Amino acid sequence: MPLPNRWLTSCIVRSAGTTILIDCGEGTQITLRQLGWSFKSIDAIWITHYHGDHISGLPGLVLTIGNTGRTETLHLYGPRGLTRIARGLLQIAPELPFRIEFHELTGEEEPMQVGCFVMRSVKLDHGIPCLGYRLDLPRQPEFLREKAERNQVPLKLWSRLQKGETIEQDGVVYRPEMVLGEPRKGLSLCYCTDTRPVPGIVQAAADVDLFICEGMYGEEEKKSRANEYKHMTFREAAELAKAAQAKELWLTHFSPSLIHPKEVLHEAKEIFPNSYVGKDRMIKVLNYEDECEDLGH
Amino acid sequence: MPLPNRWLTSCIVRSAGTTILIDCGEGTQITLRQLGWSFKSIDAIWITHYHGDHISGLPGLVLTIGNTGRTETLHLYGPRGLTRIARGLLQIAPELPFRIEFHELTGEEEPMQVGCFVMRSVKLDHGIPCLGYRLDLPRQPEFLREKAERNQVPLKLWSRLQKGETIEQDGVVYRPEMVLGEPRKGLSLCYCTDTRPVPGIVQAAADVDLFICEGMYGEEEKKSRANEYKHMTFREAAELAKAAQAKELWLTHFSPSLIHPKEVLHEAKEIFPNSYVGKDRMIKVLNYEDECEDLGH
Repeated sequence: MPLPNRWLTSCIVRSAGTTILIDCGEGTQITLRQLGWSFKSIDAIWITHYHGDHISGLPGLVLTIGNTGRTETLHLYGPRGLTRIARGLLQIAPELPFRIEFHELTGEEEPMQVGCFVMRSVKLDHGIPCLGYRLDLPRQPEFLREKAERNQVPLKLWSRLQKGETIEQDGVVYRPEMVLGEPRKGLSLCYCTDTRPVPGIVQAAADVDLFICEGMYGEEEKKSRANEYKHMTFREAAELAKAAQAKELWLTHFSPSLIHPKEVLHEAKEIFPNSYVGKDRMIKVLNYEDECEDLGH
Repeated sequence: MPLPNRWLTSCIVRSAGTTILIDCGEGTQITLRQLGWSFKSIDAIWITHYHGDHISGLPGLVLTIGNTGRTETLHLYGPRGLTRIARGLLQIAPELPFRIEFHELTGEEEPMQVGCFVMRSVKLDHGIPCLGYRLDLPRQPEFLREKAERNQVPLKLWSRLQKGETIEQDGVVYRPEMVLGEPRKGLSLCYCTDTRPVPGIVQAAADVDLFICEGMYGEEEKKSRANEYKHMTFREAAELAKAAQAKELWLTHFSPSLIHPKEVLHEAKEIFPNSYVGKDRMIKVLNYEDECEDLGH
């Protein structure tokens, strides 16, 4: 439940003109406004499941997006039930200046291109249909002028080859690899809440730069509670981060009874040292490995 | 729209074990928690109309009430459309431990007893079905021991007569006025938003102790805008307060463009001196005229 100093769990990701919001509990639009981020430019909203704390802010947010004068289609993604539930919530938004497209997911789809991101979903274990999400931002290989010249690629084809096209001209086939360097590691993020630990999460979070994971309960004594309510302890989340070889773990979605999550963070750090306690409006800039700039937590 | 330091318009009223919430925009439960008021004891929620800023917080609030373990029926009141719209919003609350009863109003019903309050609705003019509400807390006449003795009322009937019963015993009819003093003025409140000024408001707010009224626009230059969007200026609200002979006016529901409403409050005060600018978590204790205690604004 939202507390005065700790709002509901939500995550917004943007890069190169694509903005994606994951989960939208009550008040998400208020804290988003505090950040000063644009509402108009949200391309897609991904909902993990239909418990109120993950979706109750949707109608208000959608109305506010409507007030910006946006006309581009808004895409909603979520597990089955999305159309029925979102349409119910959006009873109070009968006249929007844009269309809404609903995409119901099973967790077994092929990865999807959403703007600049490649997104995939993973089935979680929370009693009701619930999905985690992984976002990848692929990185283009470097353009190598010398290689292009060495391969005698005509200058006017460089830009199209760099974008990935294969071109035949005067009987010669030119391929992107004739002007590009080695594949380069992109950026990735995985967001999993609410759930018990399941092996699919380890796959979905494999090698991610940032793994945002629920840690409903801090103390390991609460494990039976976590089991009963289909949540996780800090240690369980840390085990997933370790197995996935994630770079960094943010714990979030704390029980209201967990008043000072930092005091139990050591539980996670013993297993996965690069663990942090999520807090409202926590921001991280992810950079390609050879481009370092971190605004910190 | 909710702003970081100015949330949506809502009003909670309680007396003698009855708690009534009027309007429930997004975030209402968060600010209510800041006040420390009980969720469990909300008896009824009255919605003025179905624009998002007046109802989008309903599903989250109802879920939170559900988490308190309450089992008593929750009563929802609002203009026509309530059942469809609230049921839509409550798609995310499929398993509540209490029943919800929907009461669709026309603005033309007889006054209704709701706990200790007498409530009535008034038709507003906002383009869609919209109601204002008046709450009266009637005050019992004083019990006069000397009068009861003078009228030779048997002692054992005193308490029932005091509660309003008429009793026949041994051929004598005993009426409440045989033990009670003069009628006493109760307490009253009127809440009207969103609307253009209409004569019904003057009736509904007649002689109220507190008149909470929308003042979407401060400056009188915005009157044509107020007319177009079916809202009011500060002066229009003040004219209503004056005509109704209300004791005190709180202006609320300011346009996001009205950043410093206090700077234009003089517009209202020129017409109705006892005008105040509403702000988040503003509280007033209303007391019977001979019982003075005011915690101030």
